[in-house]
Amino acid sequence: MELLQTMLTEAGFECRRADRNGVPNLLARWGVKGHERTFGFNGHTDVVPVGDPADWTADPFGAELREGQVWGRGATDMKSAVAAFVAAALDRVRSAPPNGAILIALTGDEEGPSVDGTRALLDAMDAEDERMAVCLVGEPTCPDTFGEMMKIGRRGSVTCQLSVRGVQGHVAYPHRATNPMPAMARLMDRLASHRLDEGTDHFEPSTLAITTIDTGNTATNVIPAETRGTVNVRFNDLHTGRSLIDWVTAEAAAVDAEFGTRTEVTSHVSGESFVTPPGPLSELVANAVEAVAGVRPVMSTGGGTSDARFVKDHCPVVEFGLVGRTMHQVDERVPVDDVHRLKAVYARILDDWFA
Amino acid sequence: MELLQTMLTEAGFECRRADRNGVPNLLARWGVKGHERTFGFNGHTDVVPVGDPADWTADPFGAELREGQVWGRGATDMKSAVAAFVAAALDRVRSAPPNGAILIALTGDEEGPSVDGTRALLDAMDAEDERMAVCLVGEPTCPDTFGEMMKIGRRGSVTCQLSVRGVQGHVAYPHRATNPMPAMARLMDRLASHRLDEGTDHFEPSTLAITTIDTGNTATNVIPAETRGTVNVRFNDLHTGRSLIDWVTAEAAAVDAEFGTRTEVTSHVSGESFVTPPGPLSELVANAVEAVAGVRPVMSTGGGTSDARFVKDHCPVVEFGLVGRTMHQVDERVPVDDVHRLKAVYARILDDWFA
Ligand SMILES: [Zn+2]
Ligand SMILES: [Zn+2]
Repeated sequence: MELLQTMLTEAGFECRRADRNGVPNLLARWGVKGHERTFGFNGHTDVVPVGDPADWTADPFGAELREGQVWGRGATDMKSAVAAFVAAALDRVRSAPPNGAILIALTGDEEGPSVDGTRALLDAMDAEDERMAVCLVGEPTCPDTFGEMMKIGRRGSVTCQLSVRGVQGHVAYPHRATNPMPAMARLMDRLASHRLDEGTDHFEPSTLAITTIDTGNTATNVIPAETRGTVNVRFNDLHTGRSLIDWVTAEAAAVDAEFGTRTEVTSHVSGESFVTPPGPLSELVANAVEAVAGVRPVMSTGGGTSDARFVKDHCPVVEFGLVGRTMHQVDERVPVDDVHRLKAVYARILDDWFA
Repeated sequence: MELLQTMLTEAGFECRRADRNGVPNLLARWGVKGHERTFGFNGHTDVVPVGDPADWTADPFGAELREGQVWGRGATDMKSAVAAFVAAALDRVRSAPPNGAILIALTGDEEGPSVDGTRALLDAMDAEDERMAVCLVGEPTCPDTFGEMMKIGRRGSVTCQLSVRGVQGHVAYPHRATNPMPAMARLMDRLASHRLDEGTDHFEPSTLAITTIDTGNTATNVIPAETRGTVNVRFNDLHTGRSLIDWVTAEAAAVDAEFGTRTEVTSHVSGESFVTPPGPLSELVANAVEAVAGVRPVMSTGGGTSDARFVKDHCPVVEFGLVGRTMHQVDERVPVDDVHRLKAVYARILDDWFA
């Protein structure tokens, strides 16, 4: 973060930190504040844990060059994309100062709680009347081959924790107890076997995953009083976090009525679904990718969440970055050529944007 | 155990210990070994844990007399019944030496693993040609009122542990994973909602209880690789442990075929169902109860398991004892009058048996 700040400042970017609760955040603008042709870039410098370094064939933080690839945590997600965009932006402002502005918003917490990261950057921008006209997020977006996919939206994500309570008892006297386990099994079966939708124009079908059921009863002759389970739904634009919480709650109530249990639903919406419908911004990015990589990227809304879910409330946002195959894994790595190609794509995007 | 051995020896019982693997077991016979009129009694001197003694209003091992009751762990299950039978037997052999034999088999492990308890006593009896013609087990059999119920059999009990394995993954990419959770939910729902039978002449319907499901996955964005669950079946004479294990295994295979999971079933049969059909032994006991308590006991096969499940392979066995309402609970207690009445029932049984 400090290195980036130094380099960007030297090139004439106006930099300020927007740290919050210990999370480092950097806002760097070249050009006039509030310019209507402000191109925005959002990225993160933090990484997921390396796990056991002994499992790696390279130093996870060594940025080793081997077999034409750069090895290390963050190689694809997404230190290389940050480097590629900053390099492209530095080249551009030095060689041909644009008629407009470039706003780079970088956070040190995208992989963690994400509460004081891009949200803090956007809050700081609101407070200071900083605006992006459009924004590109540099997350890895390609499954296997460079250039094959970009993201024009993301599914939403909601997690519901279900606590099913009954009445404890002895298995030999089930009529004196109310076993919460069959209710949990029925509820989870209903939720998991329900087809939420068939997908929409820009989205795959929504999916629900039961992630855990836990009871902790070690006595095989005891009917437990309570069991807890969790489901996570990745949903498209046919749903909202609220509509899904309401659905889960209604299913729980129906099962409770059948089994005589009491189910409590605690929920957390980590992001609503959103889409930047194909248009000028996605065309700008797709054209640049096609020019550099020779393939036109598919416009996807699949995969996990990203900080685009926050940026979308500020301006149109799309994502394009590297091949993410090794992200979050041991021996994360990326071909050096791909990093150069990504810089070329970003440079082309800036050229076309300011043309 | 030593106190009983001393008292019985003094009254002319031939006593020997049949301890095994640290479990104290006492075999005490009055009369000629192998006599065809040998009345057997089986009981246990061990008790379940007291829990937190601070929760008790009496010393759990004080045998306090208060409000006409004797308070303490084992008051109903089943030190009082052991005392009542031994007292009745001592009275009888002293006052009117019977034409026959009395064989008392007491163990110090009925509440624990039950591997070296009554089983060891029966093994010792086999090895020494000791025979009971019939056997009475002194477990608490009455739900609320003294004399209202006796046991002429017990349901069987089988426990199946199910480990459902899939393929771990990220919730955003469910097609790359195989989530074992929906399979577990479906399997458990099928098992729990299946009606095993409608009951038989001497048995209530069999029941299945899911006792636990555990996964231990704390990450709400991760599809777990495995989940484990346990079911316990209390079954009547329409089933065997084996037939139920086969049923559970077949249901698991059907669910595996549907979900692409691999389920492993580990099982343990703690006892097969058995019944001593109403006849001379149950009549003997029921008549004695009716003579003393004024009510004719219902002949039940309900409730949990007991050591009768081992004795039944040796000779016809029934059970009669105290009101079990406070057994295994804090402040276990029994009216002193009930202990005297139980001794009277046991005395009457011996009188009628030797008449
Ligand atoms: Zn990332
Ligand atoms: Zn007992």
